[in-house]
Formats: sequence, structure tokens, C-alpha cells
Amino acid sequence: MKRIAVLFIAVTTVASLVAFSAQASGSGDEAISPNSSPIYGVTVPPGYRDWQLIAVKQLDFGVMGEQLRAQLGNDIAIKAYKQGTLPFPDGAIIAALHWSRVSAEDNNKVLDGPFPGTQSFVAGSFVNVQFMVKDSKKYAATGGWGFADFKDGKPGDKALHETCFPCHIPAKDHDYVYTRYAPVN
Amino acid sequence: MKRIAVLFIAVTTVASLVAFSAQASGSGDEAISPNSSPIYGVTVPPGYRDWQLIAVKQLDFGVMGEQLRAQLGNDIAIKAYKQGTLPFPDGAIIAALHWSRVSAEDNNKVLDGPFPGTQSFVAGSFVNVQFMVKDSKKYAATGGWGFADFKDGKPGDKALHETCFPCHIPAKDHDYVYTRYAPVN
Repeated sequence: MKRIAVLFIAVTTVASLVAFSAQASGSGDEAISPNSSPIYGVTVPPGYRDWQLIAVKQLDFGVMGEQLRAQLGNDIAIKAYKQGTLPFPDGAIIAALHWSRVSAEDNNKVLDGPFPGTQSFVAGSFVNVQFMVKDSKKYAATGGWGFADFKDGKPGDKALHETCFPCHIPAKDHDYVYTRYAPVN
Repeated sequence: MKRIAVLFIAVTTVASLVAFSAQASGSGDEAISPNSSPIYGVTVPPGYRDWQLIAVKQLDFGVMGEQLRAQLGNDIAIKAYKQGTLPFPDGAIIAALHWSRVSAEDNNKVLDGPFPGTQSFVAGSFVNVQFMVKDSKKYAATGGWGFADFKDGKPGDKALHETCFPCHIPAKDHDYVYTRYAPVN
């Protein structure tokens, strides 16, 4: 009987701690967790850096600098791209990795011989990463997509995330996704 | 006995055909196969488009145009990059995928709102793909690397491939490889 009482106290104590922890971290409501995006509650998918390549981009923000970018997809997203499946199926996740663009002087010295005046640029410091997560029910109000923008591992604020879906509406014909699969032959 | 004779004839016929085929296609000497690179005998590794991302680059060739590029690695190469292993172990293969850089007007229209004057560029047509294959014995004379440059699935000529290793000599301190692993945080 004594053992059962101790066990009961131990279990309720742990349960209370878990409940308190859940309340404090907001894990009962993903949208207000410090590790998930506001509005959508999207967290950083483990191992996304190892996903397959969809495409590469360059963005010149003018006075705000230049970026080199890569879009990666999880297996569901890559399969959909390869098979031309639209809309993307639930579970598809697209990651957009953004780096500052830096000049590669070492490359330029070598390339200047065969290709005079060549300017080579590589990925410098990591700026941010964005995710689009497909869940047609959970995110029905935003085309079936949940959005997230992380900088230094922390999600941006609500105001930032309010801009995600409106910017993607013009791409409605491609299930709100701008990026196309970069071809090889 | 009759069956054995028929079997013998069949086997020798097949062996002769295989030998002839090998001679005709040059598969006894990879360097002169129409599907492998001159000098090095490197063929296109199956499934390389699905390899993990090492980094992204942009190259401005001036009047010769602009490119967006991605470097992908097979599992051995990626593991070496992540662990900082130098020299790269035998079996490592690095693929450099080159696309023409094209303006993305759809993106610009949307981005011009929050970021006035933004210029967005994406991967257009596929230009060529290059490979570096590590085999420290087979390619001992060229830093342990075999090189290949394919355009439309066909390897470039001998003169082109004679330029590969000399261009990589300045990167000797990084095992003749220019590309570094693009970081995330």
C-alpha cells in the first residue's frame, strides 16, 4: 500500500510538471510555441539540409544586398515535382535556404584565364530558411499550406508571417508554389 | 552429349559477341568510350540529380552569359564534407550542375511590393554537368581525381578535359576542390 501511495504521488507530480511545462511553452497551441511559426505552428523539420534539390535562385534586393538561394524538398515534395502532381499532396514540405552572396576571389583568379573578367559568387553566411508545409485540412484557409520563416533557429513574428500567403496567391495555378524543378539532361 | 555441344556453341557465341561489343564500344579502355570522359574514363553516375546539396554558386561570364550552379555530392562526399575529412576518401563524387540564369518576372512583380526594385533570377535551361571522381590510385597523376564534363549527355573532347586538373591545382590545400559546404544554423 505504501508503495502504491509513493507511486501515485510520483505520477501526479510528474503529470503536474508536464502540464505546467506544456502551459509555459504553449505546446498545447503550436502557434504560440517559441519554436514554431506564428499563425501556422510550423517547426523546423529535422534533417531538412539533407533533402534533395528542387532548384537554385539568385535574389538582388538592391541596397538590401544579394542572396543565393536553394529550394529543397522532402521525399513527398520531390516525388510530386518529378511526377508533376498538383496540388502537392499532404505531407509535402518545401524548404527555401537563403545565403548572403559573396564574391569568390579564389575562383575569379583561376577563371580569369580561360574566361577573362569572370565574376564568381558563392553562398556566404546563412540568412534564413523558410518552409511551406502541405496540410490541406489544417491550412485550408491558406491554400492548404502552412508557412514558416526562421532566422538563427527562431521563427519570425506574426506580422512577418501574415505576409506569406498573400505573396503566394499569384502562384495559385501552381498550387501557390513559385519554385519549379530545375531540369537536367 | 548433344545438349552439351549445343550449350558449348551457345556459350562461345555469346562470349564472342560480348568480346566484339567490348571492342567496338571501347569498354576495355574507358577513356575512349563515347559515353565516358577522355583521359579519365568517367561516366555519368546514375541518379546524381538526387544527391544531397553541397553548395550553390553564381557565375557571371560577361558576354558569355550568366549561370546559376549547384554542387551535389554522393553519400561518401557528403559525409566527408560534414566531418571535414581531407583528402576526400576514394569513392567520393562531386557533381557540378550548371544552368543558364534567367530573370523571373513573376517573382519580381510580387517582390517589388515589399522590396522595391528586386531582381529575381532562377535556373533556366541546363547547360552542362561536371564530375570529380576520387580514386587515389587510378587518378594518382591528377591529385587522385578523375574529371568529366558532359553537355547534352555527351562528354566534351580531350582538349577540354586537359584543362580540368590545371584549373584545380590552386585548390590543392582543400584536396583540389573549390566548393565548400554551404552552412545552415
